[in-house]
Amino acid sequence: MVLRGQSPIGIFDSGIGGLTVLAEVRRRLPHESILYLGDTARVPYGTKSAETVVRYARQCAAFLVERGVKALVVACNTASAYALPDLCKSFDLPVQGVVEPGCRAALAASRKKSIGVIGTAGTIASNAYGSTLKSMDPSVMVVSRACPLFVPLVEEGWIDNEVADAAARRYLDGLGSEGIDTLILGCTHYPLLKNSIARHMGKGVALVDSAAACAGSLEEMLVKRGIAAEPGLASQCHLYVTDLPSRFESIAHRFLDKETPPVTRVDL
Amino acid sequence: MVLRGQSPIGIFDSGIGGLTVLAEVRRRLPHESILYLGDTARVPYGTKSAETVVRYARQCAAFLVERGVKALVVACNTASAYALPDLCKSFDLPVQGVVEPGCRAALAASRKKSIGVIGTAGTIASNAYGSTLKSMDPSVMVVSRACPLFVPLVEEGWIDNEVADAAARRYLDGLGSEGIDTLILGCTHYPLLKNSIARHMGKGVALVDSAAACAGSLEEMLVKRGIAAEPGLASQCHLYVTDLPSRFESIAHRFLDKETPPVTRVDL
Repeated sequence: MVLRGQSPIGIFDSGIGGLTVLAEVRRRLPHESILYLGDTARVPYGTKSAETVVRYARQCAAFLVERGVKALVVACNTASAYALPDLCKSFDLPVQGVVEPGCRAALAASRKKSIGVIGTAGTIASNAYGSTLKSMDPSVMVVSRACPLFVPLVEEGWIDNEVADAAARRYLDGLGSEGIDTLILGCTHYPLLKNSIARHMGKGVALVDSAAACAGSLEEMLVKRGIAAEPGLASQCHLYVTDLPSRFESIAHRFLDKETPPVTRVDL
Repeated sequence: MVLRGQSPIGIFDSGIGGLTVLAEVRRRLPHESILYLGDTARVPYGTKSAETVVRYARQCAAFLVERGVKALVVACNTASAYALPDLCKSFDLPVQGVVEPGCRAALAASRKKSIGVIGTAGTIASNAYGSTLKSMDPSVMVVSRACPLFVPLVEEGWIDNEVADAAARRYLDGLGSEGIDTLILGCTHYPLLKNSIARHMGKGVALVDSAAACAGSLEEMLVKRGIAAEPGLASQCHLYVTDLPSRFESIAHRFLDKETPPVTRVDL
């Protein structure tokens, strides 16, 4: 496959959370066109088995590859954790997940090399963050915790109220006593809960957002491969979803700082 | 199609919540064999569009009909609310939802004819409970409220802690001031939150569980059509799920009072 600079970048996610990655990519790479796919008919992935997540991720990737993307970004942490090796083997183009960039950013931020990871049940069960951190620095200490309720809290818009605080306390109290100085927000929804999470972790713990780290790694990769878009080209952004767009459109603004691009429903 | 008494009853749900209906049916109709299908690979339905829920419900029903069930029970409130007319048209066998039995039970319980309904976003948006109640008694006053976080709370096992209480307060405080004397738990997961919900509604409000009402209606229908199982036949129960069974099996005991029947993974 010939990869061209003017081709779009393909980003997919289990649903809406990947818009935090889309927003970071647009901020950092304003000349790049983007096709975004949210699998809203089958969301969430975080509670499902590796086998099912790999199957769904492959279908999402195939949809974007058919539309001529030059690179794939797996914005969903659960899909990154379970499906990245399979996607790299199955598709003949660069595939960028969120786990590796998140780990690199966390190691850079942590002085004590003592890092916490929070994510969906699937992401934590996969131990993708733990094993990637250890492969980058065998001396690092990692503690991880699944926080399944954080995704529905964000989707409900309860990002800074007493329910979010009570859930954060339940999930994070144990983590705080482990002596970590850095916490990876290992799910695209979690940056929206930053206030509650930061309050419970205290000032001594740096929060690392994989979305921002992922956009940085994507830029490096595009430049290294010589497939970055030329400045001056008019960039475009289009969103696809597998369920009807209305609910997606009504929540999207929480994740985006600009206007929501056009959204089209597709079947996978 | 010839319906036979010894054929099994087919029950389907978006996932695990329908086991509350399964448990009621087994308690009330111990001679009946049952095939249960939980669409765990695509759960939840409650946040998805009518169009997608109807498509999924049709696939679930077809799976059970192919296996020779004599009657279909739509245990999922969202699927009952959106897909019942379509399923009744598409399949040549009796189809029983949870909305109508729940409404009948609520009208019987309410002296003031002032009824509250809580359910998923989809169930409430469909207004299936509201319009069914009004069709049964035009004088009834209905107030309804979507409680999207209740399902993930139950799946997390947080059914009686401070997070469940904080969420119940948020959702139910407004409802309490509406003067209702009966509240329909319009989602199969909600009976597990009965303690929290009852605390917030107070003693003056009767809680109606659609699962129990549904099993009663099913019994009536089987008897009326002459397709109830003969007492003395050895009844069997088998569960099917669309994702790997492990997570389902690990939560199922919360919904069942007996041992979990065998679970098989299937593709729809």
